[in-house]
Amino acid sequence: MSEAFRPVTIGVAGGTGSGKTTVSNALLRRVGEQNIAYLPHDTYYKDISEIPLNELGAPNFDHPHALDTNLLIANIKDLQAGKSAEVPMYDFVKYVRLPETRTVGQQPIILIEGILIFAEPELRSLFDVKIFVDTDADLRFIRRLQRDIAERGRTAESVIAQYLSTVRPMHLEFVEPSKRYADVIIPEGGFNQVAIDMVADRIRTMLSGQSS
Amino acid sequence: MSEAFRPVTIGVAGGTGSGKTTVSNALLRRVGEQNIAYLPHDTYYKDISEIPLNELGAPNFDHPHALDTNLLIANIKDLQAGKSAEVPMYDFVKYVRLPETRTVGQQPIILIEGILIFAEPELRSLFDVKIFVDTDADLRFIRRLQRDIAERGRTAESVIAQYLSTVRPMHLEFVEPSKRYADVIIPEGGFNQVAIDMVADRIRTMLSGQSS
Repeated sequence: MSEAFRPVTIGVAGGTGSGKTTVSNALLRRVGEQNIAYLPHDTYYKDISEIPLNELGAPNFDHPHALDTNLLIANIKDLQAGKSAEVPMYDFVKYVRLPETRTVGQQPIILIEGILIFAEPELRSLFDVKIFVDTDADLRFIRRLQRDIAERGRTAESVIAQYLSTVRPMHLEFVEPSKRYADVIIPEGGFNQVAIDMVADRIRTMLSGQSS
Repeated sequence: MSEAFRPVTIGVAGGTGSGKTTVSNALLRRVGEQNIAYLPHDTYYKDISEIPLNELGAPNFDHPHALDTNLLIANIKDLQAGKSAEVPMYDFVKYVRLPETRTVGQQPIILIEGILIFAEPELRSLFDVKIFVDTDADLRFIRRLQRDIAERGRTAESVIAQYLSTVRPMHLEFVEPSKRYADVIIPEGGFNQVAIDMVADRIRTMLSGQSS
């Protein structure tokens, strides 16, 4: 890579069930995974013992303090400086960080995804392109319900309880207000081919060096 | 042009003062005016005698029926079929359509701009890319106030009266609900360079034929 090399840092935010992972996956496929350092914010969860509790005493995974955002910031800064980064890995069964890390090398594109990545000013300032995937709240809840029942064996009642006590209030307090910092808002996330084409073209143009 | 030629039709909508004209102008400049058939919806205004009246008996230029949308649809269909189009010209002093027309030839890109272009299903169905420029209502009002005072010699009182009696209610009834049909929402319109870069790259990729 040349000395003038500077990676392009792209953030994909949006509420639970908005389709942001589908957008990220489409970008990985379209632009090429081999060109992208992909860091989902949720591998930066703190150990369960450090997760803030909600009013009912249950862990609040949707609060900014549940995530080790300082480590994500440090990882991004390393990658932007042309160094590799030691990225945490998380055990989503035991809710603890694994002892080992994943080494991510320098790439022309850094792609960060998460519900809260535009909520904190220092993290937000690191992005060149901020994309917010915006889907109506009822559709987002339905997708989360279906996913948690199918993939995590949850009951509808437990999904609803967590949604009302934690997911929804945190969305209204932190995620939704962060939308105003987006450069582009994509309605209906992963099913929006026109918008995905647009973002993918922009990334490919940046990759090919004609950045204006 | 080859027989397989099919122009790409792009719509830029958004409320008054949102910055949509600035976005359109940036695209014209970046992609090249010589490649674009640019049809602003407001050259399709009907004669003042045919404009619907608001509750106070004043002409309501923000109602869909104030515009000859059928003619815009016919013009777009001609251009999409590889024909030239006879586009109307409007006298914004006398509020009447001019007797002469402007001949617009076939172009690879058709760019349509207006507050109401996503509000009518038949028109909406003609776009390949639907962009909505979304700016907070207070900022939009301030821009309109400044523009109407500076460029049209209006008083603040008359701008406020028109805004409250017509512009704002029509925005809430027709413009704002049409946002949900957008493929991409651009916050803060003309000042959003990241989004303009993205749309311009997409158009240039489509122009160069690598449309996926």
